[in-house]
Amino acid sequence: MSQHFENIPAIKYEGKDSSNPFAFKHYDANKMLMGKTMAEHLRMSACYWHNFCWQGSDVFGANTFDRAWYKPTNEMEAAKMKADAAFEFFTKLGIPYYSFHDVDVSPEGRSVKEYIRNFSEMVDVLEAKQEETGVKLLWGTANAFSNPRYMSGAASNPNPEIFTYAAAQVFHAMNATKKLKGENYVLWGGREGYETLLNTDLKRERAQLGRFMQMVVEHKHKIGFTGTLLIEPKPAEPTKHQYDYDTATVYGFLKEFGLENEIKVNIEANHATLAGHSFHHEIATACSLGILGSVDANQGDEQLGWDTDQFPSSVEEYALVTYEILKAGGFKTGGYMFDTKLRRQSIDLEDMFHAHIGAMDTLALSLERAVQMIEDATLATLVEQRYAQWNDTLGLDILAGKHSLQDLAEYALRNNLNPTPTSGRQERLENIVNGYIYR
Amino acid sequence: MSQHFENIPAIKYEGKDSSNPFAFKHYDANKMLMGKTMAEHLRMSACYWHNFCWQGSDVFGANTFDRAWYKPTNEMEAAKMKADAAFEFFTKLGIPYYSFHDVDVSPEGRSVKEYIRNFSEMVDVLEAKQEETGVKLLWGTANAFSNPRYMSGAASNPNPEIFTYAAAQVFHAMNATKKLKGENYVLWGGREGYETLLNTDLKRERAQLGRFMQMVVEHKHKIGFTGTLLIEPKPAEPTKHQYDYDTATVYGFLKEFGLENEIKVNIEANHATLAGHSFHHEIATACSLGILGSVDANQGDEQLGWDTDQFPSSVEEYALVTYEILKAGGFKTGGYMFDTKLRRQSIDLEDMFHAHIGAMDTLALSLERAVQMIEDATLATLVEQRYAQWNDTLGLDILAGKHSLQDLAEYALRNNLNPTPTSGRQERLENIVNGYIYR
Amino acid sequence: MSQHFENIPAIKYEGKDSSNPFAFKHYDANKMLMGKTMAEHLRMSACYWHNFCWQGSDVFGANTFDRAWYKPTNEMEAAKMKADAAFEFFTKLGIPYYSFHDVDVSPEGRSVKEYIRNFSEMVDVLEAKQEETGVKLLWGTANAFSNPRYMSGAASNPNPEIFTYAAAQVFHAMNATKKLKGENYVLWGGREGYETLLNTDLKRERAQLGRFMQMVVEHKHKIGFTGTLLIEPKPAEPTKHQYDYDTATVYGFLKEFGLENEIKVNIEANHATLAGHSFHHEIATACSLGILGSVDANQGDEQLGWDTDQFPSSVEEYALVTYEILKAGGFKTGGYMFDTKLRRQSIDLEDMFHAHIGAMDTLALSLERAVQMIEDATLATLVEQRYAQWNDTLGLDILAGKHSLQDLAEYALRNNLNPTPTSGRQERLENIVNGYIYR
Amino acid sequence: MSQHFENIPAIKYEGKDSSNPFAFKHYDANKMLMGKTMAEHLRMSACYWHNFCWQGSDVFGANTFDRAWYKPTNEMEAAKMKADAAFEFFTKLGIPYYSFHDVDVSPEGRSVKEYIRNFSEMVDVLEAKQEETGVKLLWGTANAFSNPRYMSGAASNPNPEIFTYAAAQVFHAMNATKKLKGENYVLWGGREGYETLLNTDLKRERAQLGRFMQMVVEHKHKIGFTGTLLIEPKPAEPTKHQYDYDTATVYGFLKEFGLENEIKVNIEANHATLAGHSFHHEIATACSLGILGSVDANQGDEQLGWDTDQFPSSVEEYALVTYEILKAGGFKTGGYMFDTKLRRQSIDLEDMFHAHIGAMDTLALSLERAVQMIEDATLATLVEQRYAQWNDTLGLDILAGKHSLQDLAEYALRNNLNPTPTSGRQERLENIVNGYIYR
Repeated sequence: MSQHFENIPAIKYEGKDSSNPFAFKHYDANKMLMGKTMAEHLRMSACYWHNFCWQGSDVFGANTFDRAWYKPTNEMEAAKMKADAAFEFFTKLGIPYYSFHDVDVSPEGRSVKEYIRNFSEMVDVLEAKQEETGVKLLWGTANAFSNPRYMSGAASNPNPEIFTYAAAQVFHAMNATKKLKGENYVLWGGREGYETLLNTDLKRERAQLGRFMQMVVEHKHKIGFTGTLLIEPKPAEPTKHQYDYDTATVYGFLKEFGLENEIKVNIEANHATLAGHSFHHEIATACSLGILGSVDANQGDEQLGWDTDQFPSSVEEYALVTYEILKAGGFKTGGYMFDTKLRRQSIDLEDMFHAHIGAMDTLALSLERAVQMIEDATLATLVEQRYAQWNDTLGLDILAGKHSLQDLAEYALRNNLNPTPTSGRQERLENIVNGYIYR
Repeated sequence: MSQHFENIPAIKYEGKDSSNPFAFKHYDANKMLMGKTMAEHLRMSACYWHNFCWQGSDVFGANTFDRAWYKPTNEMEAAKMKADAAFEFFTKLGIPYYSFHDVDVSPEGRSVKEYIRNFSEMVDVLEAKQEETGVKLLWGTANAFSNPRYMSGAASNPNPEIFTYAAAQVFHAMNATKKLKGENYVLWGGREGYETLLNTDLKRERAQLGRFMQMVVEHKHKIGFTGTLLIEPKPAEPTKHQYDYDTATVYGFLKEFGLENEIKVNIEANHATLAGHSFHHEIATACSLGILGSVDANQGDEQLGWDTDQFPSSVEEYALVTYEILKAGGFKTGGYMFDTKLRRQSIDLEDMFHAHIGAMDTLALSLERAVQMIEDATLATLVEQRYAQWNDTLGLDILAGKHSLQDLAEYALRNNLNPTPTSGRQERLENIVNGYIYR
Repeated sequence: MSQHFENIPAIKYEGKDSSNPFAFKHYDANKMLMGKTMAEHLRMSACYWHNFCWQGSDVFGANTFDRAWYKPTNEMEAAKMKADAAFEFFTKLGIPYYSFHDVDVSPEGRSVKEYIRNFSEMVDVLEAKQEETGVKLLWGTANAFSNPRYMSGAASNPNPEIFTYAAAQVFHAMNATKKLKGENYVLWGGREGYETLLNTDLKRERAQLGRFMQMVVEHKHKIGFTGTLLIEPKPAEPTKHQYDYDTATVYGFLKEFGLENEIKVNIEANHATLAGHSFHHEIATACSLGILGSVDANQGDEQLGWDTDQFPSSVEEYALVTYEILKAGGFKTGGYMFDTKLRRQSIDLEDMFHAHIGAMDTLALSLERAVQMIEDATLATLVEQRYAQWNDTLGLDILAGKHSLQDLAEYALRNNLNPTPTSGRQERLENIVNGYIYR
Repeated sequence: MSQHFENIPAIKYEGKDSSNPFAFKHYDANKMLMGKTMAEHLRMSACYWHNFCWQGSDVFGANTFDRAWYKPTNEMEAAKMKADAAFEFFTKLGIPYYSFHDVDVSPEGRSVKEYIRNFSEMVDVLEAKQEETGVKLLWGTANAFSNPRYMSGAASNPNPEIFTYAAAQVFHAMNATKKLKGENYVLWGGREGYETLLNTDLKRERAQLGRFMQMVVEHKHKIGFTGTLLIEPKPAEPTKHQYDYDTATVYGFLKEFGLENEIKVNIEANHATLAGHSFHHEIATACSLGILGSVDANQGDEQLGWDTDQFPSSVEEYALVTYEILKAGGFKTGGYMFDTKLRRQSIDLEDMFHAHIGAMDTLALSLERAVQMIEDATLATLVEQRYAQWNDTLGLDILAGKHSLQDLAEYALRNNLNPTPTSGRQERLENIVNGYIYR
């Protein structure tokens, strides 16, 4: 058996006083919290692309990662070595899920036929690997943005044959996801957006996209895929403007095409901040709209205007996000997927482990803090009390639609209303949150 | 008759070679373009608040404007002097419309009753002024954000009595707008948003807001107001996050509450850029969704993170925006409203004229450029050609819903699809646009 | 004795398990760390302006704070009541320092003469208060930006009489600071910047500013003020562009006018982030240039483009900042000054305490984490090792200026150099930091 | 002779009414303005890298440009074909200058020796091409950021051998630039910055950079290179923070290492905006500090947080920038260099021409507008008048250092100063500018 990470031990939980860099300090997979194990709450997944496809290049520089699995010149041989390395990594790390794009795991070939043949062969390889290791598929997806044919979009392309090519990829990627018992299927609108309004018909492109998503929903039902369909919002990059800008925009799109009960969102932390929102905001918005599906758990750089896909390290941020998710009932088919890449200077194989260990510990600790927020209920109670007056007659009648504008105008005059404001207590609430995080 | 601007002549069109700073270089109100006068196309409006209420303060400094109409200590006397000054200004400037909030024109008083009495008296004053001068009301609105009672929102307030107070204001402001033959009624969600998620129930606040807007729609129909209802998107400021973040968000909100055929958007240039969009983007998005109502014509500062409300001076920006509006059929009840304020250092009365003259000329010149873009049709033709393949069988069938994902996957394989990309021609299109602007 | 905060107890340290909101969980003033008490390390200061002058207004809304000390109509009476409230607050909170602008503590009057008389009287009041309570002055400053005369700047004003007026204020404020044993004197360039380049002569304005600062330095030596002179960088707001943009810009300015050994910087967290830097960056930059003086300890909102002056709550941020300051030897005359204001909705007097308690606990906990980083030395050792090769001959000779470009070109060729890169270990370092913060 | 652009005619000036897309509408090379030709004023240069090295990839997608010169498998053969194509392009376009990095024009090889041999051979090729076509070299530079060895910086690298390798490249690139009669030599600090403060010693890295730049200056004098040395500021990308952040930062750096009379700045429009400044600001700042050298003429996207390097199309922006440069005496050795790339979807060879023609016309028209601003002198006169009081005794004495703070405080009291502010006239000035641009 090939040993890509032979110097790295399997990662175990050793507790927060451990000084072993190759051990978890907080992630204790089987620890029970609110009736579920940590692993069941967090449902963490590693990604294929950043770990096993990206080679360390950036816009200004060449590859810096020197990995064995990039060396074979035969594409299928390389794909299989990559799968070996990937599952060795997932297993040593002890992460329960992985996620992939079709062309991450399989060479895209020089024709539709070759694409299908390669992919089919690699899906069998992955199926065997899953069987052997117990690692499961959180979600699958199709990459319809890297090949030059997609330079002007996939579903939103001005050429219907390119739309059709993308449809073929999604067809096969959905089928593969079902075969591999994937729990979700994701659509990220890589180039579904515009570069310049001067050459773009927004209404037409949205109609194309709407029809594409309807076909995806129809196909899901046809094949009996029981996972969740997810759209992943992002405001820009690679395009100037992506149509799935943020959660609120995706919600409007789903409503326009009657899809709001069929598709949920996969929120990425760094996409949220690029859209001008806090990560917390996007999660809370999706929860309030009932469309939270899954999370791409990463972290951006507040000073940089592009997707840096860093590993999550902020418990201050993730504790509140996890609290929000727990309040909404926790993950169903979704989970925390690490759409994260090493810094380009972190060139050693061991860096892959440092990065994921830190991320998994960050989420585990955040979960513990969030669980206590839920169990104490102090925060929830304060919020409820703030709106308590809406449970009185006036408030209930307003929301029940029993009053017109005129009724209320008369009510205000009749009662000579002069309502006084109440403190919002923001600083006190922040202290309470820090009380949980730094207990 | 009081003469607040006695040293300023009535502003006339003198053509672009004029060196008179108190003359229009491009705005020739009665010039015909595409069957309408410039005035009819642009439907320009001055605002009451920045010109006649704001006194030049900012967060770090006291008032700098020393105006006669701020001096009377009797509030109603001051309000009437303000109205005199306002209509003298509108008339000298030759702008056809104005716009106001209830408390711009009328002291809000110390009770609901006083509010109603003051406002009623001032609406009569305004009606007489309109009659006398021919200046018309583009839109009215209610200010439900400045008074401390609204510190935690109006419709989204945790206290239903404050919701009720806001309802009373909107009731009276809508009635006043109808009486004054206003062509639109605007709702700007000043503090309809949150400061911290820690004390906020997003779902509940959105429900409150939804019901509020339904009541507004019902009231419109009840009183037979024939103008357009408008929501004005803004991402933040004064709140951390406003629920009417941008056009796409407002669209989703309208769909959620069944209001998409009743309410349109009033897009402000500087709000668009604060939301991370180009102004052009917001206009094009609203047009593509069929919800463009009116425009707050101003300009932000690309380096500053707050609403600077500067006067529009960029023909490069407004020519494309106007082109988009003309493509969508031009303004119906809406228009270009100057939600603009003098720089705090522009303390002289004459600065009010310089600023508006420049803005009106910018829009007039932009209109001329946009009309030529429409009449030549080069841009539109190139866009149409880009999507031409969608008019062939494959494209038509896809959009007609005749194909499943599987059909297309089989089509791709059967035809061994290998579509090649076509140049997007962005730079060529930019040259064409500059050819119009700098002809 | 007047009792402005009669329902609030004096704040004591009760430890992290305390559930008393009016107690410190982490700030234990006399706890010894690295040979100094917490109080001596942190040197925390409350500010006068946000707590006792600002009344809760924002750009879109009126005052929300209803405080006794804003009520007296006699200005000097109000100033004295404010001083009573301020020192009662400082004392109950147990904060060792305070800071003020001249016109925070004293009515500016209607003439230079009145300004001097009022200020002189209030300085005596403050002196007595300091004596009585033991509260000390961290720094004083002059407000040369709020009065309309300063609308176009103070030292950079186009009118030399306004420059002169500002000089008079700074003269008196420096003298007052000396009298009150202030440990620093701060200059914040409120409106020393431009609104538009169209009316601005950058070179001339910088020369004016340079001369002004030289006079300040000369005056310091003349009166024997032994505190530190500080410039506080900020990129914009209220101006479009402030000349003291950030630490690097201030350094260049100091070098241009020969002031680099006379003036240090007072870095504000929220100004750092508005300038597009991390707070950590600005602190590290100032330390590396040897010009760190003091810190305005607050926190911005990552989604908002203006100075929100929130209370610090992030230990993740402040632990690293404090580590940087400790590495550079800790504060000398400077300290952590809370340039922080309540959220406008936090209208109760008790909110002032919640906010400051949370902030002081955040800094205390950050200090504890930073001290452990220093004492363990793991981080510092790893950084040192990274540059270890520079201690070999080649590196030493290069930095000693012994090599020319040609020497090195020949060296590279002769040795057929092919240096290989080494992992930057960013993720591992982030794990180490989290190991300290969440131990 | 190879004909890479055989279907494109040589580009000529045809005037603004021409509808020929392959003609200049405004750039009339020999037109005289203020005693110089347009070509002499603008000194425009095309770049090698974006046009002849970049193949249309982005972070999310593969190459889209299919050019003949990327096909030869022999590296030197490809380099020569590239040179053929480049000079054919420069000549057809009629642009007087070009600019390059060492490894744009020459394969970097597998050793220092190979690097030198390849580069030397290609410099001879370029010399012959220059001779043959009359195209001149605006500036040369070395790429010390793309090779993986530079992943942690060049001069600021923790490994002195990598510093040395970079020194070797700069040595050869400077010599080549001299040989090719280049008029400037540029240093862009690609990776001279940090990714994380956790592994970085700022002071040490700045010292390394300082010594490197001193060696460059020494070498310039040693070889008698008479061109200008330039540093190109950029705030970030590829690093998180680059040490040459902006003009003000570079100025401080130059002062720290005594280089302020030896090195000037090369300002890039899109770098300016990424740094949070307007392009106009950076130019005006450099002029006011006397360090403006040259300009990378491009345009960013206001909504995107990375360097998009678009072709300049805004006359509104470039007219003011060019006005600033003309006020400062115009370019000496510098010029307008197009650091611009095609949009990734503009895949045709003709797009290279559309893009450059548009850019050159934008600059030509901007020059015409700026010349008129200079010749009319209205703007300059208004600025001068604004500061006129500084020419009176008080102002002159202050700037001459004749007054102390105390003198001015006494002056203010004695004269009972009460200076009143004067309108800044921003809107009027904006109208005047538009009067020139849209005359």
